[in-house]
Amino acid sequence: MIFDRLPIPIVQAPLGGGPSTPALAAAVSGAGGLGFLAAGYRSPRVMAEEIATVRGLTGRPFGVNLFAPVPGPAGREAVERYAARLEPEARRMGVNLGEPRFDRDAFEEKIDRLLRDPVPLVSFTFGCPSAAIISSLREVGSETWATVTDVEEAELAEAAGASALVVQGLEAGGHRGFFVDGKGASDYSVLALVQLAGARVRIPLVAAGGISTGGAVAAVLAAGAAAAQLGTAFMRCPEAGTSEVHRAALASSRPTSLTRAFSGRSARGVVNRFMRDYDLDAPVAYPEVHHLTAPLRARGREEGDEDVVNLWAGQTHELARPLPAADLVRELARDARGALKVAGERLSRSHFR
Amino acid sequence: MIFDRLPIPIVQAPLGGGPSTPALAAAVSGAGGLGFLAAGYRSPRVMAEEIATVRGLTGRPFGVNLFAPVPGPAGREAVERYAARLEPEARRMGVNLGEPRFDRDAFEEKIDRLLRDPVPLVSFTFGCPSAAIISSLREVGSETWATVTDVEEAELAEAAGASALVVQGLEAGGHRGFFVDGKGASDYSVLALVQLAGARVRIPLVAAGGISTGGAVAAVLAAGAAAAQLGTAFMRCPEAGTSEVHRAALASSRPTSLTRAFSGRSARGVVNRFMRDYDLDAPVAYPEVHHLTAPLRARGREEGDEDVVNLWAGQTHELARPLPAADLVRELARDARGALKVAGERLSRSHFR
Repeated sequence: MIFDRLPIPIVQAPLGGGPSTPALAAAVSGAGGLGFLAAGYRSPRVMAEEIATVRGLTGRPFGVNLFAPVPGPAGREAVERYAARLEPEARRMGVNLGEPRFDRDAFEEKIDRLLRDPVPLVSFTFGCPSAAIISSLREVGSETWATVTDVEEAELAEAAGASALVVQGLEAGGHRGFFVDGKGASDYSVLALVQLAGARVRIPLVAAGGISTGGAVAAVLAAGAAAAQLGTAFMRCPEAGTSEVHRAALASSRPTSLTRAFSGRSARGVVNRFMRDYDLDAPVAYPEVHHLTAPLRARGREEGDEDVVNLWAGQTHELARPLPAADLVRELARDARGALKVAGERLSRSHFR
Repeated sequence: MIFDRLPIPIVQAPLGGGPSTPALAAAVSGAGGLGFLAAGYRSPRVMAEEIATVRGLTGRPFGVNLFAPVPGPAGREAVERYAARLEPEARRMGVNLGEPRFDRDAFEEKIDRLLRDPVPLVSFTFGCPSAAIISSLREVGSETWATVTDVEEAELAEAAGASALVVQGLEAGGHRGFFVDGKGASDYSVLALVQLAGARVRIPLVAAGGISTGGAVAAVLAAGAAAAQLGTAFMRCPEAGTSEVHRAALASSRPTSLTRAFSGRSARGVVNRFMRDYDLDAPVAYPEVHHLTAPLRARGREEGDEDVVNLWAGQTHELARPLPAADLVRELARDARGALKVAGERLSRSHFR
């Protein structure tokens, strides 16, 4: 398995929607961790080009993340009501709202390409693909990871044949990975999930959500994970494609919150005006609302107006460090080893062994 | 500090409202951990008696937890509306609803007693007492811990002179410890909090929330905590005063949720009918709603009707084990040491040190 080929059990989260770059993935893999390309929101052609670029930069293994198709489309009326609500915002910014279309993010075409030109690892977010897809990827030599947010999803993904699970706690920045968004959705933390899923499934777990320090990397390994996946922690690296307004928000100590305002799916970001103004009105309608707000968010990033930008960030974003990705991987690993030593000293005081 | 006198860095959470007993606290302290008495909901006299009982059972240090007075009282009208909503439920159970009174849980009288007859450690939930109270406790030789749920509360408590902080993640069962309940309250996980508070305050942190395995104990120590505090994990111990309906719910894998339905303050419990029926109507009104629903909950416990009982539980309750508390402390410590070893092996593969 890929874990046995990783000198450092640190995985870079895929970081769709801007921050993901081939340079970032290659730097993380080159340093001994596991880099990822986000294929979500990318065309199959761009996905293939980025894969080629990473291969040119490193011979080490890396992963490609796909969005699994979500149930849908959502109710038209709710989306139209939300669009009407956002109209004044669009006029103010001088853009037209996007077409709130439902799509499958070219899932099947991406799978076809990955079957013809395999990568070491394909991971999935927003659902687990069929056992048939997982098995055909296995046949071409690709491992498959599924992102899960509760034990039920973990058991479904294991049954479908996934090689490992990314257990995503509610601390994580960006979209929550639940298979179905909505009321009563999972609120498990990463530490709770590693314990619960660890007791119920047999495949390895990759722990994701709010991990920014070497101590937290050591923590999830001690809890039972095979590796730690860090997203926000890599977003201030020079190799990341993170926008300037977004970098500034990450460096602050401003609070984060979950919201559907930007995309119609629950996601965590630094609280800003758009989130405050529209959170309560946003329907469960992904990816329709994602497309609807895309021009607004793009204009905000261009103009440095953070008020309308989705500032995805995990709960510990203020601890993200603006270091080259390879240095960051090595420092996290070193700090993790130091943290284990301190923990071991605390536990070895026992006179009662 | 008390941490230096603990052979095992495992703290039993106070567990107010039933599960706390002198036998449980003494068993945990006797095994090398740190036991706690919940003085909340107890009269000052009963608190003093329980302290005497613990002293008779063990010479090891233990703690006493007090509820810090909360802001209030809440608006009368909201409480009356909620009482009217609960009337049919009370009739069905053959009880009268309680008087929804505001009180300070005899805070000042309890502090007076603890100043006259000091214990090694006093911890606080729902707020941080004044620097004057903390300093008078220090003068009589008691350490003071404050429970916090975000970095702002952590900084306030450090400034007030607390000896250490219990950082409570949203995984935790029972009441959330925020200083002020309400919209936009903290949703930090314990792992996020240990990292964030660890970067901002200098006093030791005790990590609380969703810790049920030795691996998770090791995890929070690796993340930087001085000790792990476990609540739900001890609630199935024979020494705990946990009711039978509550024990049954803990042993299940049913989901938990945060609710104000039982007490007027956000708290996590296993989802049951009462929570589903009344969650949306419950006002922010603690302790008024706690007193209002007390007869209902007591009758539910007596009759084994779990539908109307507050089944407080952390996210990993299904991993709580029905072991004698001393055995549990020792097994958790042993498992924690094992977990550190495994994590160390994962981190020592690095060719890149």
